[in-house]
Amino acid sequence: MQILFSKSQIVFLKKIENEMNKNRLEAFSDGVIAIIITIMVLEFKVPHESGLKALISLLPTFFCYALSFIFIGIYWGNHHHLLHVVKHVNSGIMWSNLNLLFWLSLVPFATNWMGENNFAASTVACYAVLLNICGISYTILQQTIMSCHQLSPEILSALKKQSRKGIFSLVGYTSAIPLAFVSPILSEILFVLVAIMWIIPDKNIERAIKE
Amino acid sequence: MQILFSKSQIVFLKKIENEMNKNRLEAFSDGVIAIIITIMVLEFKVPHESGLKALISLLPTFFCYALSFIFIGIYWGNHHHLLHVVKHVNSGIMWSNLNLLFWLSLVPFATNWMGENNFAASTVACYAVLLNICGISYTILQQTIMSCHQLSPEILSALKKQSRKGIFSLVGYTSAIPLAFVSPILSEILFVLVAIMWIIPDKNIERAIKE
Amino acid sequence: MQILFSKSQIVFLKKIENEMNKNRLEAFSDGVIAIIITIMVLEFKVPHESGLKALISLLPTFFCYALSFIFIGIYWGNHHHLLHVVKHVNSGIMWSNLNLLFWLSLVPFATNWMGENNFAASTVACYAVLLNICGISYTILQQTIMSCHQLSPEILSALKKQSRKGIFSLVGYTSAIPLAFVSPILSEILFVLVAIMWIIPDKNIERAIKE
Amino acid sequence: MQILFSKSQIVFLKKIENEMNKNRLEAFSDGVIAIIITIMVLEFKVPHESGLKALISLLPTFFCYALSFIFIGIYWGNHHHLLHVVKHVNSGIMWSNLNLLFWLSLVPFATNWMGENNFAASTVACYAVLLNICGISYTILQQTIMSCHQLSPEILSALKKQSRKGIFSLVGYTSAIPLAFVSPILSEILFVLVAIMWIIPDKNIERAIKE
Repeated sequence: MQILFSKSQIVFLKKIENEMNKNRLEAFSDGVIAIIITIMVLEFKVPHESGLKALISLLPTFFCYALSFIFIGIYWGNHHHLLHVVKHVNSGIMWSNLNLLFWLSLVPFATNWMGENNFAASTVACYAVLLNICGISYTILQQTIMSCHQLSPEILSALKKQSRKGIFSLVGYTSAIPLAFVSPILSEILFVLVAIMWIIPDKNIERAIKE
Repeated sequence: MQILFSKSQIVFLKKIENEMNKNRLEAFSDGVIAIIITIMVLEFKVPHESGLKALISLLPTFFCYALSFIFIGIYWGNHHHLLHVVKHVNSGIMWSNLNLLFWLSLVPFATNWMGENNFAASTVACYAVLLNICGISYTILQQTIMSCHQLSPEILSALKKQSRKGIFSLVGYTSAIPLAFVSPILSEILFVLVAIMWIIPDKNIERAIKE
Repeated sequence: MQILFSKSQIVFLKKIENEMNKNRLEAFSDGVIAIIITIMVLEFKVPHESGLKALISLLPTFFCYALSFIFIGIYWGNHHHLLHVVKHVNSGIMWSNLNLLFWLSLVPFATNWMGENNFAASTVACYAVLLNICGISYTILQQTIMSCHQLSPEILSALKKQSRKGIFSLVGYTSAIPLAFVSPILSEILFVLVAIMWIIPDKNIERAIKE
Repeated sequence: MQILFSKSQIVFLKKIENEMNKNRLEAFSDGVIAIIITIMVLEFKVPHESGLKALISLLPTFFCYALSFIFIGIYWGNHHHLLHVVKHVNSGIMWSNLNLLFWLSLVPFATNWMGENNFAASTVACYAVLLNICGISYTILQQTIMSCHQLSPEILSALKKQSRKGIFSLVGYTSAIPLAFVSPILSEILFVLVAIMWIIPDKNIERAIKE
């Protein structure tokens, strides 16, 4: 059958097959991230009374949920952009991806622990440690992908810019650990600042991929 | 390698790549919406006795579940049609999509709160507020997509007709808020009317997309 | 850009686009069914003691889980084959699909109710009623799809054969309702027989689709 | 319409259609596996106190979660590679795939039972039995796929190498069953060794598929 294809068609077919192969890594990651982002809401224990007071008592949990939703959303967005770059999937990429997903899957736990204990120092520090580990895992995935793909200079410089953001985040998270024992609220503010830094759109990587 | 492709093939490849790129946004949204629509059922606490009485006591929860299932289903359908229009995904679309998903993810909570408190006024009002926010978030997503795509007049007019439906919904939800404190049942009737309005198939947008 | 394509390429492109469009309906259904099939396991409450006795006490729950897993699996398989036939998705198909998913989503509830009450008559009858409704919803979906697609005689005859199986199932489920009040175990045996009938592979539809 | 296509285009179209058909089996499996891997984290009951002590008390549960995450991850990776080989999906493949998913779906239960009872002998043995059944189910799936596809000698030899790993695993799991009653810790060490054996990348199958 292969004989029916012209050479360019085979290359073309390969490219589509690669896309689809990659697609499964993306689909699985999307599935896991979608579940992570959604099961957090299961911890919103429905209060047994009605009334505004019952709602207000949920405010710290709500804040935690929103914060973690945004962080997971940021990871999804970055993951989305990063996997654009991938042409072929190997075991290294698979396992560093699974490693990232593992740590992300602990975010709902850390979120709820923090929310249920009203931002007790140790729970905020634990949240910061987890965000740190997630950040490092993402960096490992990025390095693994970069080490087995030849990237164009535009994409490289865009990824470098993103790495800079990553380093800022790690500094922020790490400072939040001791800070939590001084003032948990200051740590939370740090988290919010890091999140805002990531939400501000990063036109560079989008432009680089387009070109 | 690029040299092996004819010009039309490159365009073709680009289109498939775009489809697949968009595909991931759709897949992630589908995942989240699928989870939202399904985890509501987890709140159907299995009654510890058997018998018809146990089932009947679940009727208000069942009504709430069915109502929310339909609302989420409507969002999924509209989202499905809306994303047909998207040609390329950018940060703006990503974040306004995540914003919509965030508010939709709170629907199970509001649903169960209402169901567990037998349609207490404050819980019904809270449900109406949430539906309002979801509707606004959807409108933001629609505007974001429209602002960065050149749309054909047919699709524009179809979207405009849908916006009209959206405005009716917002009016309905907003009236349901004060109404809940007068008669929660009237609010529920309003919700059902809005749902019916959406289920009546909207041939216009389908036709427009086809053409 | 459209001008760059030959006529056959446009048809080709359309077909791929249709596949992808349909793909989203499949992906969403797959997501919901995957969640339904998996969340049932959440009801396997981990016993607080170790030892074989603790495991044995879970046997009725395990049987119910396995039975429902198989039923949902059958629906997934049939759904998979049925959607092969679909060329274009419209509101009718969307809503009859959502209707099917709604009733399927209640299977975990009915399963656990039955398992937790050791096959009390009313719970078994309720399970049978639900299976009936699911079967009818599936038939509605099938009719909706058949009414807006021109099908080849082979596929039509294969679908008709499947409809016969469907009618046998409905007869089985319906008999199981009164039977549950005589002997729940006989009803369970009926369920198992229906499941076996479906698991026996249906080569006809596969062959018809191939041709 | 069919007449508009050249012969090579039809072959090409068929291949894409096959890919997409297969895609749905993959997507469904990915969905189920993604949920299995993530719902385990729901059993991490958030401790009601803050402080390091509360975290430390979760360590056995955490170890169990990590171990099961890795096992499920290994299955996903192998499944990913195995389904590369599939060209057309039939009932046999569907059902042996569902069979594998069924047993995998019990992993969260066995994991939590073990974690909650601090590695009591019977719970560790139960975990080992389940891993055994999963391994056998995977082998059945592999055999089903091999029996209805003509495979190139490279892929066959790669699959054979994997089968060898599979036999080592079964020997490991089976030894862990009686060993659990002597020393649960030794069984756990066996599990870890098996996991490490699988994580070490299997370049053979990747290379074989490439060629």
